[in-house]
Amino acid sequence: MKGIFITLEGPDGSGKSTIMEYIVTYLKEKKMDFIWTREPGGTEIGEKIRKIILDEENKNMAAETEALLYAASRGQHVQEKILPALKEGKIVLCERFILSSLAYQGIGRKLGIEEVRMINDFAIKGIRPDLTLFFYVDPATTLNRKTEQRGGDRLEKEGIDFHREVYHGYMKLLDMYPENTQIIDATKSIEEVFEQSIYYIENILKRRNEK
Amino acid sequence: MKGIFITLEGPDGSGKSTIMEYIVTYLKEKKMDFIWTREPGGTEIGEKIRKIILDEENKNMAAETEALLYAASRGQHVQEKILPALKEGKIVLCERFILSSLAYQGIGRKLGIEEVRMINDFAIKGIRPDLTLFFYVDPATTLNRKTEQRGGDRLEKEGIDFHREVYHGYMKLLDMYPENTQIIDATKSIEEVFEQSIYYIENILKRRNEK
Repeated sequence: MKGIFITLEGPDGSGKSTIMEYIVTYLKEKKMDFIWTREPGGTEIGEKIRKIILDEENKNMAAETEALLYAASRGQHVQEKILPALKEGKIVLCERFILSSLAYQGIGRKLGIEEVRMINDFAIKGIRPDLTLFFYVDPATTLNRKTEQRGGDRLEKEGIDFHREVYHGYMKLLDMYPENTQIIDATKSIEEVFEQSIYYIENILKRRNEK
Repeated sequence: MKGIFITLEGPDGSGKSTIMEYIVTYLKEKKMDFIWTREPGGTEIGEKIRKIILDEENKNMAAETEALLYAASRGQHVQEKILPALKEGKIVLCERFILSSLAYQGIGRKLGIEEVRMINDFAIKGIRPDLTLFFYVDPATTLNRKTEQRGGDRLEKEGIDFHREVYHGYMKLLDMYPENTQIIDATKSIEEVFEQSIYYIENILKRRNEK
């Protein structure tokens, strides 16, 4: 495995998508060999699964079903897109990965961190990010940002209690899995958040090139 | 749990659907309180998942993704349909259940019996059939039967080696999990297979009524 696997994580509305666009532009200008992708989705099969997960019609979806669909989409994503790119030595940028499932399904849906980790390990065969950028922001701020943007999908429409639960879940997970994770204060300006992100990305690229 | 959970299992083309129709007619005539259902599918969300699993377009589906989608559909099926019916004291007839996943994904796709059992246990929270009717027939016979019927979906179109693998998988699984399972020789006439099936069903209903 010669590539570098970088994930962007954080609650809804923490600015992941915006910063991803900035990072993509930056890497393009530097003529880096990279792909960027997101979860759920990222492949044709994954997009079909994503549609089922987020469709508001599916209000009565069992929590276990939701978690298994996320894992199914992730398995396809890893095997069809992420692993091949890493094998070719590319940088892979991915918005949301396992940490999101542990927070939303493991803690938010109360399915258990270990249980959700187990079905994900089945899906992805032990691949781990080389760097996770975690965008730290409290749930009140993120929900306001999202509501301003648009109506929101099935998961975004969950109540404030659910999102607070997820937020505390993330805090717990960052304690449990600090490895390769950098926490970034996402309440700062976009420019500051972007600069901080690039600092960590440059760092890991430098370390790879020294090997 | 007052109801009775009965599953029909066996390789493709072993006659499960035909015998299910006979059983349904029989239970209707007896004015029994029952529902019948099938996997994958059985619920609205499950049908959407089923479509993704069987769609020939999705040829490059990862084996892990396939197994997780089956488990996701099953989780919804159990929580939305099977458990509520059992709680109301109904007989639940289901075509295909966990044994199918263990044979097709655990053994046929070589994902491992224990691994596939684990993701299914996550989905269904420990529910087990009170009676499994296993329709025993060799893979050459079943494949001929299916080909006569119609073109076949993504899984039916797998080669003879895959189906032979699944067949030997079933044999192994019947050794591993003999509990509540009755093996029926499905090479016999429909009438004989039906009579044998009803014999076991009547037996378990009698035992329940004696309790």
